[in-house]
Amino acid sequence: MSILLQVDFDYSGPFGEEMAGMLTSLAESINHEPGMIWKIWTESEQDKLGGGIYLFEDKASANAYLAMHTARLKEMGIAEVRGKVFDVNSSLSIINQGPIEKLSIDKP
Amino acid sequence: MSILLQVDFDYSGPFGEEMAGMLTSLAESINHEPGMIWKIWTESEQDKLGGGIYLFEDKASANAYLAMHTARLKEMGIAEVRGKVFDVNSSLSIINQGPIEKLSIDKP
Repeated sequence: MSILLQVDFDYSGPFGEEMAGMLTSLAESINHEPGMIWKIWTESEQDKLGGGIYLFEDKASANAYLAMHTARLKEMGIAEVRGKVFDVNSSLSIINQGPIEKLSIDKP
Repeated sequence: MSILLQVDFDYSGPFGEEMAGMLTSLAESINHEPGMIWKIWTESEQDKLGGGIYLFEDKASANAYLAMHTARLKEMGIAEVRGKVFDVNSSLSIINQGPIEKLSIDKP
């Protein structure tokens, strides 16, 4: 059963491609975190927020990542990180095409 | 550019298959919401939370859905809904296999 980790925090930028350029190596390192299936990087310049939505293989991996990531963000100057670990309701998510299994991107 | 909507709220159940049985029709109706690409249904019996992570085609659709859904949850007795609309950082999400495009599930 997959586990969803939801993280957000107050963040004043940089956003978009400037952020992507700065954090490419960090993103690549996240692929090696135990149990990580995927991450969507979230940001809002309007609301001054950063964050991420992650799918993990199990709760222990999600909790361990959240503790590590919170400490890392604190070192980057972000004092308060809002992190929540959720179970996924698979039956309902499947009805709504929720990407909760290993997926491949359609190449049209 | 896809938009991510993050919703959670205090919720005391039912969870899991009991919730899925109650809300199958609601989930089916969500497939007809304008601009909705997918939803992952999130829940935590431990932390007494419900919620959802959605991908939308554009910000207007995400904002309209959040307003409608917040009103609907209020009718169901949930007074405070935490909803946040995010841009997706595509370059970083693609590095981490983030499902931000139209996807198909691998059938092994």
